[in-house]
Amino acid sequence: MYPETLKIGGKQVPYFRNDEFSNIILSINKGLKKLLFNKNGEIILLTSSGTGAMEATIMNCFTKEDNLIIINGGSFGHRFTQICDVHGIPYESVNIIFGETLTREMIEDKLNNGKFTGLLVNLDETSNGQLYDIKMLSDVCKKNNLVFVVDAISAFLADEVNMDKYSIDAVILSSQKALSLAPGLSIVALSEKMLKRVEVIDSESIYFDFKDYLKNAERGQTPFTPAVRVIIELEDMIKRLEKKGIYNIIKHTNDIASYFRKRVNEIGLEYPSYPLSNAVTPIIFPKNNADLVYKRLIEDYGFVVNPSGGNFAKSMFRVSHVGNQSIEDCEELILAISEIIKKL
Amino acid sequence: MYPETLKIGGKQVPYFRNDEFSNIILSINKGLKKLLFNKNGEIILLTSSGTGAMEATIMNCFTKEDNLIIINGGSFGHRFTQICDVHGIPYESVNIIFGETLTREMIEDKLNNGKFTGLLVNLDETSNGQLYDIKMLSDVCKKNNLVFVVDAISAFLADEVNMDKYSIDAVILSSQKALSLAPGLSIVALSEKMLKRVEVIDSESIYFDFKDYLKNAERGQTPFTPAVRVIIELEDMIKRLEKKGIYNIIKHTNDIASYFRKRVNEIGLEYPSYPLSNAVTPIIFPKNNADLVYKRLIEDYGFVVNPSGGNFAKSMFRVSHVGNQSIEDCEELILAISEIIKKL
Repeated sequence: MYPETLKIGGKQVPYFRNDEFSNIILSINKGLKKLLFNKNGEIILLTSSGTGAMEATIMNCFTKEDNLIIINGGSFGHRFTQICDVHGIPYESVNIIFGETLTREMIEDKLNNGKFTGLLVNLDETSNGQLYDIKMLSDVCKKNNLVFVVDAISAFLADEVNMDKYSIDAVILSSQKALSLAPGLSIVALSEKMLKRVEVIDSESIYFDFKDYLKNAERGQTPFTPAVRVIIELEDMIKRLEKKGIYNIIKHTNDIASYFRKRVNEIGLEYPSYPLSNAVTPIIFPKNNADLVYKRLIEDYGFVVNPSGGNFAKSMFRVSHVGNQSIEDCEELILAISEIIKKL
Repeated sequence: MYPETLKIGGKQVPYFRNDEFSNIILSINKGLKKLLFNKNGEIILLTSSGTGAMEATIMNCFTKEDNLIIINGGSFGHRFTQICDVHGIPYESVNIIFGETLTREMIEDKLNNGKFTGLLVNLDETSNGQLYDIKMLSDVCKKNNLVFVVDAISAFLADEVNMDKYSIDAVILSSQKALSLAPGLSIVALSEKMLKRVEVIDSESIYFDFKDYLKNAERGQTPFTPAVRVIIELEDMIKRLEKKGIYNIIKHTNDIASYFRKRVNEIGLEYPSYPLSNAVTPIIFPKNNADLVYKRLIEDYGFVVNPSGGNFAKSMFRVSHVGNQSIEDCEELILAISEIIKKL
């Protein structure tokens, strides 16, 4: 987290049902529309984790009459299928085995065998770092008239998420990834086309009723007590992002990721061969000792990386490249990993 | 907010999928069970506002086979009815007109005309400060075998919320009221009896699936990224509350509320005659200028009180007595109000 954010975190949380706070939300919505290239759409701020926003988006944008394609290449793709299961929304899952790259043919196989109305993707599948081809996905959606939903929780600020250019209808974000704020706030950006869809769908929830959020957002408010402090941090962050320019930020993340990957190879380790998001590099440990390296990194060097779950706990961990970091930070981490693997 | 809390707010948010953070959650759950007298029950920490927790509780504890009594004496009672409407859960609403006091007879009128399984109440109806008679409600629930759900979002730490003594099956809390933390975290405490109910009800949500939270809570985790920073603040707050003792805290709030109400009368104003929570005093302005006094308080004195909505915007505002405040703070506010009304 950045010092500017921590400074806000240490201040009294103000009362929020007034013009001062409304102006903060209005300024955030304007800023996010710019950063996401969502000129004619709207922004919804939810007090929830990213999964809450994923579920809310599905509940408010689709019904049992829909039929969705879900790109399912890891835990977060799987989560989309679980949400559709619970809400009885029909879907076909395009399953990608670890190591495999998503292709257009895999999606067209499904499209040829049914009538579909939408496509859901975690642009960067956080659990293994695969970055799906947004240009291809966008083209598939356009050609097949599919509503296009992008979970960009990991991809935002690391990879290109341009709603206008790629005709994206909903983008899901959360506060704790590249935005580097405290967790607890998630964001859904809806396109003009999606707003029309939301308008005619009856909400199955009071807490996650997008129509209520959209109505309140007009005057810069939320229907229920929001995560006020994170929202104030978000306003500050957006101002700083706008100053830097979104494509400069993505380039910075790409520079760090590229440098890091080159160095991973130089110290004798590997990363997956499928296309990777700039947000994260999964490092593969051929000796199946990722868990031991992870532990040494914390205990001997104070570095916390992201352990992989389940079957990958010993073979891989992930290193994030987003937030407040530099090439120098990267190099320190690489040297630490290099020292540890020599000793193990 | 207390200086101890703000100090935590200004620190880096740590990684949370590790033992250190699990121990924080385990310590919170233990502490909350003590403070709520919920020895054999469990605690659920949700990343949501209080309304999210109200909806989650109804979704996980009741089904279309239930029939509920809802005490509806203001905006928050009304919210319970809206949630039941959306989820198709049958209920009868005991409507209390502003100024009226809830009586046992009003509830028994409904009970005599149907078969009921549960009762929902906002113990302190936040929108107008009425404190319902928990002893009477508890007795009604016991005699009629009703599951007893208490939204104590406003009442906690101000009025007695003893799950064991009053056989309460679910208590709903949120971080930003008397706990004086940043908003964004809500808490549901479930009794042993309610846990058995939750076990056999199929969740209609992924994000609000209590069974998933209960399973994760065993090892001190949550199914999805939690509001980490607020949780760390909560651990600190609970330790301090345990040191003070829950009944001492309630007495302190009662002392402040009693002093404040005496002074309200002394400066020639009134408050409602129905039983009031210690958490809040609604002040009635006979000249219908509550909105003007509210504005002067902010602009000339820097005091922010809680404006009333809708029909009550001009006749009333509410003064909170919870959180970091003393008799001296109260007196300053009274003197300010007194000066303002003399001039208006």
